[in-house]
Amino acid sequence: MSLRLVIWEAQWAAYRDRFAAKLQTDWRIDVLDPAPEALCQGVRGADALLALALPPAARACARGLRVFLNPGAGVAHGAASELPKGCALVNCYEHETPIAEYVMMAILMHLTGIQEKAAAFREGRWLGSGRTGGQPHGEAQGQTVGLIGFGHIGQAVAARAKAFGMRVLAIRGRDEDPAAPPASAAADFLGGPADLSRLLRESDFLVIACPLTAQTRGMLGAAELALLKPSACLINIARAEVAEEAALYEALRSGRIAGAALDVWYQYPPDNRSRGHGSALPFHLLPNVLATPHFSAWTHGMLDRRIARMAETLDRVARAEPLERVVLVGDWEPEA
Amino acid sequence: MSLRLVIWEAQWAAYRDRFAAKLQTDWRIDVLDPAPEALCQGVRGADALLALALPPAARACARGLRVFLNPGAGVAHGAASELPKGCALVNCYEHETPIAEYVMMAILMHLTGIQEKAAAFREGRWLGSGRTGGQPHGEAQGQTVGLIGFGHIGQAVAARAKAFGMRVLAIRGRDEDPAAPPASAAADFLGGPADLSRLLRESDFLVIACPLTAQTRGMLGAAELALLKPSACLINIARAEVAEEAALYEALRSGRIAGAALDVWYQYPPDNRSRGHGSALPFHLLPNVLATPHFSAWTHGMLDRRIARMAETLDRVARAEPLERVVLVGDWEPEA
Repeated sequence: MSLRLVIWEAQWAAYRDRFAAKLQTDWRIDVLDPAPEALCQGVRGADALLALALPPAARACARGLRVFLNPGAGVAHGAASELPKGCALVNCYEHETPIAEYVMMAILMHLTGIQEKAAAFREGRWLGSGRTGGQPHGEAQGQTVGLIGFGHIGQAVAARAKAFGMRVLAIRGRDEDPAAPPASAAADFLGGPADLSRLLRESDFLVIACPLTAQTRGMLGAAELALLKPSACLINIARAEVAEEAALYEALRSGRIAGAALDVWYQYPPDNRSRGHGSALPFHLLPNVLATPHFSAWTHGMLDRRIARMAETLDRVARAEPLERVVLVGDWEPEA
Repeated sequence: MSLRLVIWEAQWAAYRDRFAAKLQTDWRIDVLDPAPEALCQGVRGADALLALALPPAARACARGLRVFLNPGAGVAHGAASELPKGCALVNCYEHETPIAEYVMMAILMHLTGIQEKAAAFREGRWLGSGRTGGQPHGEAQGQTVGLIGFGHIGQAVAARAKAFGMRVLAIRGRDEDPAAPPASAAADFLGGPADLSRLLRESDFLVIACPLTAQTRGMLGAAELALLKPSACLINIARAEVAEEAALYEALRSGRIAGAALDVWYQYPPDNRSRGHGSALPFHLLPNVLATPHFSAWTHGMLDRRIARMAETLDRVARAEPLERVVLVGDWEPEA
């Protein structure tokens, strides 16, 4: 008899056939209508659920669920009480490679001023050229990357930054992905939350690569941003709310810090037909901000690997093998 | 008694004080007027010359020159007969770091389509975003870099590309910088000129990183470009003329290859007040070309290192120590 996977997420529903092709064990895959009512009915008796979150109203229907597949590394559920007893929450991310590639690109684009120079060249101006006595630019080599968060993304950034001859400082909190190794030779310094001010003072590039939790929400306010060098560039590929919106905008608008690359936002459009600039504040108009549409992780390679990882997790469920990247195991039970 | 360095190059003349600060031995530094007549008079009796080339008319005046400092890795002089007997031609480049950084940036910008996506975001459009079901982009990881030239620049690219999980193929010619090591573990394959067609067929990113010589001039014509994958991106940070101008333009205009990043050009503006697009053909208008003003090497770090390297060379001359990075030693003598 087949086990049953329920997909309750429009984007991942489109990959149903790719899941089916990767599975080595016998699963029936049901794609549910996005309406909340559909979930409770569809998830009843299912063994696995792929969704962004399990709403409280559907919890009782989801009894018997053995695994909740979280497509990403966000904290879909932060407490065991939010998932039915025995249901493992498994993070399936596989996005650290493209995110680290984006971070390195953002560092190099900031240092070279490539956007300004390419635009000038289209007008025939040789801005910053060695051939015509232009102003030199900066190199990544010798500069310091400060990583807030040293999970799978932070470590992937560190490995690449070291190959560029950069110095890598990192701090990690108690809430980091427990599947990540506790430390790494890739960082020149690895500290904890108490080392934040050192990180802020020494970084040329400050990279936010931590989960959004009660501890990290708003951890970079005006006081913290004031510790950054005037030449510093902030890169956020985690969640916007780690940095206070108004404080970050003001630091960038005033030139208090040199620049930012922002791929995550305070506001999201409801669908792909809607427009939006990610914030009520006009970050997108600041010339020192590289503003991008939460796309850094969205690669063919990430999707291939993530689907493979999810299928492997389901195969392990079917074979009763131990699961990897389990964030927590639910302990919710209906009152007797 | 002081030795004497003559600088006959406007840009490097401006760094006179920085040279002086680095020298540990006793040198007098004379900066000459850029007019050709000034050279013959000024170089007489000098021990060292920093210039882009020694014109034939000044050769007889330059007898006694012990070292010709070439600020770069171009082949300032290709034959011993072009320099006075006993004068060592020393390449002082130190630009491999920023050029390799530019190459990696160009690879990542091509893969992400960052320019198009950042421009769309300024209009509120979330192009290619995972949050709104956009089209995924590509990753550097797993792709193949093909290096034409495996001297100091090619090797610096290879080291970084490997850290990104890329496959590295390289070929090198007989004319490569003799100071570079003959091979490296950083390349998955290292071949010679006969392997060019393999390199063209297998590369996702083809990087031109060889000197311009009689052998390499025009080595990428229509027939060679036709071997590239339609998805290939060509990156030129060496000399434009390695690729045939009209053939490359046509391959890019027609979409025969996917894109290019071009930092070196077929035409240069005469000075920093002049404009120009680098070619009679409108490469700068092609949407699939990242066109930049020969600026990739022009960093503060490169200048610091190059000046230090030149000063070290002069110190070695003064101390009669063996010189490094000697490309050739002149053998010209006036007829008796």
